[in-house]
Amino acid sequence: MVLMLREKNKILTDTIKRLLRRGATANLYKIVDKTHAADLSQVFKALTLVSQRKLFGMIKDLEKKGTLFSELDDKELLDLINSLPLDSIVEVLENMASNDAADVLGKLPEEISDTILEKMREGSEELEDLLSYEDDTAGRIMVTDFIALKEDITAKEAIESLQTEYQDTEIVFYLYVVDEYSKLVGVLSLRQLVIVPPDTPLKEFMTTDIFSVRTHMDQEEVAKIVARYDILAVPVVDEANKLVGIITVDDVIDIFREEATEDFLKMAGVGDEYVETQSVFRSTKTRLPWLFASCIGGILAFFIISGFETELARFAYLAAFIPVIMGMGGNIGTQSSTIVVRGLATGRLHTRDFWPVVLKELATGLILGLVYGTLIAVVAQVSFHETVPSGLFAASVGMAVVSSMSIAALVGSLVPMLFARVNVDPAVATGPFVTTAIDIISVYFYFVIATRLLEL
Amino acid sequence: MVLMLREKNKILTDTIKRLLRRGATANLYKIVDKTHAADLSQVFKALTLVSQRKLFGMIKDLEKKGTLFSELDDKELLDLINSLPLDSIVEVLENMASNDAADVLGKLPEEISDTILEKMREGSEELEDLLSYEDDTAGRIMVTDFIALKEDITAKEAIESLQTEYQDTEIVFYLYVVDEYSKLVGVLSLRQLVIVPPDTPLKEFMTTDIFSVRTHMDQEEVAKIVARYDILAVPVVDEANKLVGIITVDDVIDIFREEATEDFLKMAGVGDEYVETQSVFRSTKTRLPWLFASCIGGILAFFIISGFETELARFAYLAAFIPVIMGMGGNIGTQSSTIVVRGLATGRLHTRDFWPVVLKELATGLILGLVYGTLIAVVAQVSFHETVPSGLFAASVGMAVVSSMSIAALVGSLVPMLFARVNVDPAVATGPFVTTAIDIISVYFYFVIATRLLEL
Repeated sequence: MVLMLREKNKILTDTIKRLLRRGATANLYKIVDKTHAADLSQVFKALTLVSQRKLFGMIKDLEKKGTLFSELDDKELLDLINSLPLDSIVEVLENMASNDAADVLGKLPEEISDTILEKMREGSEELEDLLSYEDDTAGRIMVTDFIALKEDITAKEAIESLQTEYQDTEIVFYLYVVDEYSKLVGVLSLRQLVIVPPDTPLKEFMTTDIFSVRTHMDQEEVAKIVARYDILAVPVVDEANKLVGIITVDDVIDIFREEATEDFLKMAGVGDEYVETQSVFRSTKTRLPWLFASCIGGILAFFIISGFETELARFAYLAAFIPVIMGMGGNIGTQSSTIVVRGLATGRLHTRDFWPVVLKELATGLILGLVYGTLIAVVAQVSFHETVPSGLFAASVGMAVVSSMSIAALVGSLVPMLFARVNVDPAVATGPFVTTAIDIISVYFYFVIATRLLEL
Repeated sequence: MVLMLREKNKILTDTIKRLLRRGATANLYKIVDKTHAADLSQVFKALTLVSQRKLFGMIKDLEKKGTLFSELDDKELLDLINSLPLDSIVEVLENMASNDAADVLGKLPEEISDTILEKMREGSEELEDLLSYEDDTAGRIMVTDFIALKEDITAKEAIESLQTEYQDTEIVFYLYVVDEYSKLVGVLSLRQLVIVPPDTPLKEFMTTDIFSVRTHMDQEEVAKIVARYDILAVPVVDEANKLVGIITVDDVIDIFREEATEDFLKMAGVGDEYVETQSVFRSTKTRLPWLFASCIGGILAFFIISGFETELARFAYLAAFIPVIMGMGGNIGTQSSTIVVRGLATGRLHTRDFWPVVLKELATGLILGLVYGTLIAVVAQVSFHETVPSGLFAASVGMAVVSSMSIAALVGSLVPMLFARVNVDPAVATGPFVTTAIDIISVYFYFVIATRLLEL
């Protein structure tokens, strides 16, 4: 079966909607049973709450229900949870992997998650442990279901314990080895276990040079480690080096996607959480404060220009070049800040290269400024050679473009580099702030240059 | 050993640089031998070509050399390759995984990659096969080293062939099952193989409901499938359903990071490949054409404003509000297009929700426009209540902000949705084009509204 996700989604969604309209319960049961949980959750998002409840009731597999919970957005999840009896929610959560269940509970208001935790017969302590770690840290996202073998046992004993104690562990990435205090001391592969003489103690052939991360490490840093070393899982240890969990590669994929989305949103000034699937009201509320920076900047620009009222009244054409000067500065500034923010996020740029990066951007801005400054000056000259004979107006427009573009490239690269250096997230500091700062500086330089040159 | 990648990088780089300066060859050999290839490649990027060559010569492990090749940027790779003898390049490539080797060759100019391919004694045919697939498709990135067992053999025979024929395969994700024509017919886990009676033929217990992708499928689509179904590898089949390779989860991580970077760059109008580590000249060349759109837009805005010369001359203050009107429109437009582009990329938004998405953005734009329009109108009224007594000027500025912001939100969401619907990458169509279109429309509406209301 060769898949194209989008078409597959569409066909499945249409079919399920049609069956729901027709009330074809028998067919629905069959299709729900056959469909992969991940596909079902895509369909789910396209349904009304009433239909969601109906479909949810038809799912027999608890694991499938758990996947649905995991994949829903905050708001959809809350609506669904509120519409379900407590018992059936608890039952689903008890059957989820502890990190997924913690993720679901973390999305709910505290009074609801507390009620659910109280009702849980098994796993609630483990969940509370996970929830005690801060959001977006290794401790919060780790899986607590891992294989830890004592260093003193033999290869044969290890194989036996895999077949008994650990027979439910689905896919074995690595076998971790711990000492008598549960401290992480080594790692093994299944293959190693099979090829050594059965009586060899694990500590004699385990690999002791092992990567691990601490529970409080930021998830983005964890993801970078897994990606850099091409490993399939990384062990998580507490302050005492006790092995407490593992983070697997499939969760790392989700982290990278989430972090990239956050950066996109921060740079555009739309908060750091995806809100579009929520109400107009929430979307408005999130975006309002970020636009305030741009509003204040615009009002500042207004005061600057008002200061040149006499000059503008004498030579109204000055105003006509404001958009191109602001636009060129704004666009090259966005280019520079995007390159720097993304470069820092992917590790292609380093804060240690502060000056090389900033100076290179400045040079690029200067060259591009000269190119476009000349072009725009020519347009000004052709349009106004009868009005201002000396070409001074064209010259001042050209110079304003050059200065606007160089300053924009400088500010666009300098600000995120500075923020990264003092450990502030460069993405959040960039977008609207840089654009606004560039607008103000560009307009100011333009008027200063023009009034000087034209002796207005 | 608990890692913090950035500090670790810095310490290692400083140490190696110091040892290189001192010519401490014995120490260098030791440190190079001990350091993980991925870390070494980070150090490598911070060195001059001369030092790179020296360090490269000290690496004994061919796999480490291969990782270095893989991690270098196009330009750095070419410089290094040009400085090395052909034999040593060939030796490294022969020991790389075929998809990684294809990736390296794909980055080199054709005459160089052809020379290398000719010299290779083993694996060159396989490489040529991979290179015959288009860039960024499943065929190009797949690993051709996978486990395929015939459906007719027994579990016992399968285990034997794993111990002999496939003993070099490092980590076994899934065991694929093929028919006599090498067509993919099923999949097995190692666990399944062990628990059935040894004489059972594979086809009697294999899973036949299996995900696969075609060789020509876009890598982004492949990555989405692996992420959605939380699988560790996906089999790649040709047109005849013959199993030709697999794509593993670690490569999927790289795809997601690469695609996110591409989207960032496209939206900012900086091409689609990361150029910052290259020369000022190349960086300028990539960015030049994208700024052209913004330049043309600015010149158009100039002609529009010039058309209102008389009005401007009579009431110069009109010009002072151009920046705030452009700025507010530009920023909300960026918010809308970012939300839509990223929503489409992550699957949170669908083209089937065209109108709900666009209308919601329009509503958000209208509300935010009313908020900020009122605010800015108040500023205009306070500043000019003595100049234009009737408050008409304040009203026209306010209305211009409302129209600019609503139109910006509309255009910012409509354009990427339209592009996605006709299968053009929404990211490339967004950035500079949308911003520029919004600038022009905003300025035009402002002057029309103001001249009407003020009867200039």
